[in-house]
Amino acid sequence: MYEKRRTLLNKHLSEKGIEAGIIIDPANVYYYTGFLSEPYERFMAYVTCPKAEKAFLFVPALDFEAAQMDADMETIIPIADDEDPFEVLKNCMGSFPTCFGIEGKAFSYDRYTNLLKMYPGAQIKDVQPFINQQREKKSRAEVEKLSHSIKLIEKVLAEGIKKVAAGMTEAELTAELEFLMRKFGADGPSFSTIVLSGEKSALPHGSPGDRKLEEGDFLLIDFGVVKDGYCSDITRTFVLGEPSEKQKEIYNIVLTSNEAGIQAVKAGVPLKTFDIAARKVIIDHGYGQYFNNRVGHGLGIEVHESPSIHQHYEEIAEKGLVFTIEPGIYIPGEGGVRIEDIVYINERGEAEVLTSFPKKLQTL
Amino acid sequence: MYEKRRTLLNKHLSEKGIEAGIIIDPANVYYYTGFLSEPYERFMAYVTCPKAEKAFLFVPALDFEAAQMDADMETIIPIADDEDPFEVLKNCMGSFPTCFGIEGKAFSYDRYTNLLKMYPGAQIKDVQPFINQQREKKSRAEVEKLSHSIKLIEKVLAEGIKKVAAGMTEAELTAELEFLMRKFGADGPSFSTIVLSGEKSALPHGSPGDRKLEEGDFLLIDFGVVKDGYCSDITRTFVLGEPSEKQKEIYNIVLTSNEAGIQAVKAGVPLKTFDIAARKVIIDHGYGQYFNNRVGHGLGIEVHESPSIHQHYEEIAEKGLVFTIEPGIYIPGEGGVRIEDIVYINERGEAEVLTSFPKKLQTL
Repeated sequence: MYEKRRTLLNKHLSEKGIEAGIIIDPANVYYYTGFLSEPYERFMAYVTCPKAEKAFLFVPALDFEAAQMDADMETIIPIADDEDPFEVLKNCMGSFPTCFGIEGKAFSYDRYTNLLKMYPGAQIKDVQPFINQQREKKSRAEVEKLSHSIKLIEKVLAEGIKKVAAGMTEAELTAELEFLMRKFGADGPSFSTIVLSGEKSALPHGSPGDRKLEEGDFLLIDFGVVKDGYCSDITRTFVLGEPSEKQKEIYNIVLTSNEAGIQAVKAGVPLKTFDIAARKVIIDHGYGQYFNNRVGHGLGIEVHESPSIHQHYEEIAEKGLVFTIEPGIYIPGEGGVRIEDIVYINERGEAEVLTSFPKKLQTL
Repeated sequence: MYEKRRTLLNKHLSEKGIEAGIIIDPANVYYYTGFLSEPYERFMAYVTCPKAEKAFLFVPALDFEAAQMDADMETIIPIADDEDPFEVLKNCMGSFPTCFGIEGKAFSYDRYTNLLKMYPGAQIKDVQPFINQQREKKSRAEVEKLSHSIKLIEKVLAEGIKKVAAGMTEAELTAELEFLMRKFGADGPSFSTIVLSGEKSALPHGSPGDRKLEEGDFLLIDFGVVKDGYCSDITRTFVLGEPSEKQKEIYNIVLTSNEAGIQAVKAGVPLKTFDIAARKVIIDHGYGQYFNNRVGHGLGIEVHESPSIHQHYEEIAEKGLVFTIEPGIYIPGEGGVRIEDIVYINERGEAEVLTSFPKKLQTL
């Protein structure tokens, strides 16, 4: 599997006249080598020289043993903390490459200048778009990993909401939810768990805090786990006690929007179609100003990856894409609702909804 | 406080002839504006034009309300998902800047090329070293925040080890520890919690898994929390049941090394001194080959920040630095020990150890 992926990348590099691809994004290193690690500020790279038929995995010295166990690579080179990674790189690759492929989003300006110091005058090409496209198209095996991660978070949600009670804080509920993640076998949260209540639910990216849950609150839970390198991400919004008419109205608009977005998903049409379909419902009900972000994002090894699903994105939807559909209405000072599902465009070009947690308004 | 920091940055930019500083690292945005947020792939930036006496905080549209609440900034500009951030930037800054300051480590090659497209021929300077140095020197108020975060994780450790029992898995113990983090009020883990047992404790960056704790195991716990924007990070290693002579030997060497490292800490000497002092103990006992990483790293808003404490780092230790001292011995296939404390070089230039969890070999 990893070799197949590397072969595709090499083919692309060769076509573009790139002699060395330097892949440093940990998610991409995992994708091509099977070694999943967060090197923080240390240097980790999968380096491939298709013309010279050489490939290396450079890892921080302290990850060397772990890399030897996990990586589908023959040549693994440890880099000590006091070594200059680009010197080590040059010692391995030699001075021949004159054209490098890097990931434009992951490669820092700092590393770019260091690379040019080592290889003055070298040509730099951005291979991020190719890699994003390669990673966008999920195999059935990847979708199974994603589904596993999704099942896990849905189990956490089902158990977690049983703990909800007026008087507990957002932070306490977060603790319960994250405990269940680990208990059910997750490797960890896939992003910072969002538990927001009452007027705070209007913050699309707020953090759980000391606010106590009260009767009549919206309770928005947006979270996910990483399991075996793949992420889940789901949002459900609940009401504590009896919902008001306004709450029911908003909830049902968002639900209709979510369903319209999913309904629109298929291969062969521009990705923006899905955003527009979901957004139209919210606009038609007069809440357009309260939904000011894109309807979804790809996910896989990363919780946010290609493609982005927004109303001006012309790229055509292809088979193999996995992304969220997550419209919301956020009324500052009042509260918000978001309903988020994960959709896969399957081998037949049809939408397969990978999430299955019920969406009808549920009171707790 | 934020204004004071911004003034210092502006002074540096002016001295370097930089007309616009574009600060995008979320930790730095927090440092200068008080707005703490993870924009993922979206664009968030504190932009300051000292000459024009203008400053902006650009945030993803969906974080606009949160930024308005938290940021110590007058001008906050939301960027919608379908807008080009660099166009929005140019609309605000105008076309005057011909010299930009960016963070070399945070600014991606992609953004660098986009910036140059918008401002052809502009000069780019890396202001990361200045910002790192500015952030390195912690005020007493920051040290208090760090201490709060440290006290919190030490409380988690004290409670958490009561749950340890042979037969439980590393992942289960991790769940208990992370539950306690939240319960005691942490905003979340400051990095992926490390709980490693037996031979796995030899992996300096391993992940907790299904391995069950057994009598005679080393149990290495390396973790931390974020609280109010500041990180803690501590490691202790325990033994389940009766330790072997070899375990006692290794443990005591690492403990002596940890103490020697801390003992060496003071202002006015090169940072490498601390690494060398700790490393010497391990080398002198014949285990030098099993300690192949730097002895420590700075921490504050980020769990890994400047300075790096390694044996070739000549920078002179100054007052205000906060960093870890964490020597270890890692014997592949057998096991490892790491003991990590956090040290502050205080106003008098002396080491103040911020961690206080006991270090004598403790059996569980």
